[in-house]
Amino acid sequence: MQIQIDPTRLQSEIEMLATISEAEPPAVTRIVYSDVDRRARSWFIGLCEAAGLHSRIDAIGDIFVRLEGAEPDLPAIGTGSHIDAIPFAGSYDGTVGVLGGLEAIRAIKESGLHLRRSIELLLFTAEEPTRFGIGCFGSRLLTGVLDSTADDNLRDSEGLTLAQLRQQAGYIGSLESVRLPRDYYAAFVELHIEQGPLLERERVSIGIVTNIAAPAGLRISIEGEGGHAGAVLMPDRRDAFCAAAEIVLAVEKSARGTGAIDTCGTVGKCQIHPGAVNSIPSKVLLEVDIRDTDEQRRNRVLEEVKDACARIASARGVIIRLELVNADSPAHSSAGIIDAIVEATEALGLSYKKMVSRAYHDSLFMARIAPMSMIFIPCRGGVSHRPDEFAAPEDIANGTRVLAHTLAHLASQ
Amino acid sequence: MQIQIDPTRLQSEIEMLATISEAEPPAVTRIVYSDVDRRARSWFIGLCEAAGLHSRIDAIGDIFVRLEGAEPDLPAIGTGSHIDAIPFAGSYDGTVGVLGGLEAIRAIKESGLHLRRSIELLLFTAEEPTRFGIGCFGSRLLTGVLDSTADDNLRDSEGLTLAQLRQQAGYIGSLESVRLPRDYYAAFVELHIEQGPLLERERVSIGIVTNIAAPAGLRISIEGEGGHAGAVLMPDRRDAFCAAAEIVLAVEKSARGTGAIDTCGTVGKCQIHPGAVNSIPSKVLLEVDIRDTDEQRRNRVLEEVKDACARIASARGVIIRLELVNADSPAHSSAGIIDAIVEATEALGLSYKKMVSRAYHDSLFMARIAPMSMIFIPCRGGVSHRPDEFAAPEDIANGTRVLAHTLAHLASQ
Repeated sequence: MQIQIDPTRLQSEIEMLATISEAEPPAVTRIVYSDVDRRARSWFIGLCEAAGLHSRIDAIGDIFVRLEGAEPDLPAIGTGSHIDAIPFAGSYDGTVGVLGGLEAIRAIKESGLHLRRSIELLLFTAEEPTRFGIGCFGSRLLTGVLDSTADDNLRDSEGLTLAQLRQQAGYIGSLESVRLPRDYYAAFVELHIEQGPLLERERVSIGIVTNIAAPAGLRISIEGEGGHAGAVLMPDRRDAFCAAAEIVLAVEKSARGTGAIDTCGTVGKCQIHPGAVNSIPSKVLLEVDIRDTDEQRRNRVLEEVKDACARIASARGVIIRLELVNADSPAHSSAGIIDAIVEATEALGLSYKKMVSRAYHDSLFMARIAPMSMIFIPCRGGVSHRPDEFAAPEDIANGTRVLAHTLAHLASQ
Repeated sequence: MQIQIDPTRLQSEIEMLATISEAEPPAVTRIVYSDVDRRARSWFIGLCEAAGLHSRIDAIGDIFVRLEGAEPDLPAIGTGSHIDAIPFAGSYDGTVGVLGGLEAIRAIKESGLHLRRSIELLLFTAEEPTRFGIGCFGSRLLTGVLDSTADDNLRDSEGLTLAQLRQQAGYIGSLESVRLPRDYYAAFVELHIEQGPLLERERVSIGIVTNIAAPAGLRISIEGEGGHAGAVLMPDRRDAFCAAAEIVLAVEKSARGTGAIDTCGTVGKCQIHPGAVNSIPSKVLLEVDIRDTDEQRRNRVLEEVKDACARIASARGVIIRLELVNADSPAHSSAGIIDAIVEATEALGLSYKKMVSRAYHDSLFMARIAPMSMIFIPCRGGVSHRPDEFAAPEDIANGTRVLAHTLAHLASQ
């Protein structure tokens, strides 16, 4: 075999990155533009430099690490993922694609293989929606799905704008400069843990992604009337949290009611005002995630949730406002890249399965400017976004081998 | 009239105190042992000293301000209330009883009336449950309802113990020293805004409290299973927040279902873990307040909520733990003090009404060591625990006059 990855080095780097976290191990919390996020990025750039790979950083912190091909003016072959982690998450979501991508490129470099095209590793800024309430804002900006108004329109829960936060983190320059031209990449391939149970359950080494499900985010604010928990009588109340509770159950009911296993509805965030045990909640903010492999079906769930909110507002005398934070279309993989991954997997003697990605990835947006597919590896119990998220070293190594062979093949064309 | 209060001075002191707050005016936030709480206490002690009244402070920060009587060894006549305020509350809850109490004592002092017993003003530490999840912890300790284990058992949301927090705030000494002997007060009278709509609605100046409703506090923790909001399918979920939503609605239903207007059930606090829009909630903590003028009826609601939690836990495969934070008995006012208040009110030519207090007060606990009653004044719309809480200066002045006359009369006996 010409391309030899180093699984031990890769594994120790994944473990090292997990220690750069705001949460106690094994939990990982790494919020974009926080101190730990910046420390993790510096450490990552150090790894690239040690491998003789140069990097550039754009105006929001996306990091591009390039292995030059013989014809550097041709559109490159891209790979990459993210290193930000939601509160109390695990060690593998995103990081396997970044550090596996780096290992693949190092192995290709060390192999001395002739590359026609350059290969580029992309560390995306903020795939997770934790800070700004919108997922993939890095890849949205790279692909023109978000424009430069995001500088003022994206705010974190403390009211700081993207413009303020990226400047504080040391990333300057106009947002316009972030957008990539349509012919920047000839292909984009992302390595990722499955975040679902199928590969493990079916004992398959590699998942090859044919479609990425379409997520939608809703922000629902409920305004009722506060007051003293002892003194305002029950019939006189307009309790914002009771209304919120009905909305939470309505989201669940609608998501379960489509008859399709692929519909998911989740209310993951809830803020109560004023938030005292003896005070009736006057305001509640909910953040809702609805996703499906079928865009029409997902949009019907959105409509049902809106209808439920209108009914609840009317019955309880509260004001409910819905803001559609995002409602993206599903992405379809490139047949050519799927074929290249199949070929690499077969050459390595690994089992594979073509599958849908129900989780959200930067590749959803990269598909808008380049042919795209993704390589999935099994993760234990399908668990993700939790401290006990786990991918076996052997599976990570296999995924990285498939990635390396796929990138090398695509770069030779 | 022998006793002349100064309503202008009192009003300006109430307005001044409202500015010592963590929240922007008109909202008031004053959490026990915070910097603003300590600043407010220093300012209050300054007022007392300016009036020639000496104070002592106990090991948790309760402040006792004494006007000596001719026979200082006799049990004193007590009055007082609190100055802590829940997040985004108003200017009158508690403060009217503290500053009105001070004004009453100053007026009695200036009147030169002969007092047999001493009159003592008590500023209670932390009537509100914001920090420790338990209301009236000052009066609970003063009256032996809580013992010295509270030093380690009471913790705030950051895990700091009462022992640590009171020491940081400068209050040292053993918790045992806080408890008052049973014959410390011959009578205790608290002035307070009604926090309900009845006095305003019926255009009555003074409410004379015959009973205080019995509150109970529940802390409910729900443990489900987290995971990625896109990847864990709906039938496989054990979403802690969906379970919490059902509990919130069960509390509301049980409180409304007693058939009695006096039953109230409120879920005022909710914490979600991990709290990210694309992560299924794995843990939720709810804080519940259930109160009633009838203890048996309140306890039946508690039982119903427990039963509902068991059903929800079983149906959803989540673990639900209930902790009864407090479940106090109602307090009954002293007939003798009620008579003294009636007499003072009639002598001043004011209308009055005997009534139940549905809200929670330090007097609930003071009733355990002394004959007790309360003087209520109207507040606009019955609104409390909100920035728009309001009591008219004239009503505050009337309440303070009734308090002064009542204290003087009781101290003469």
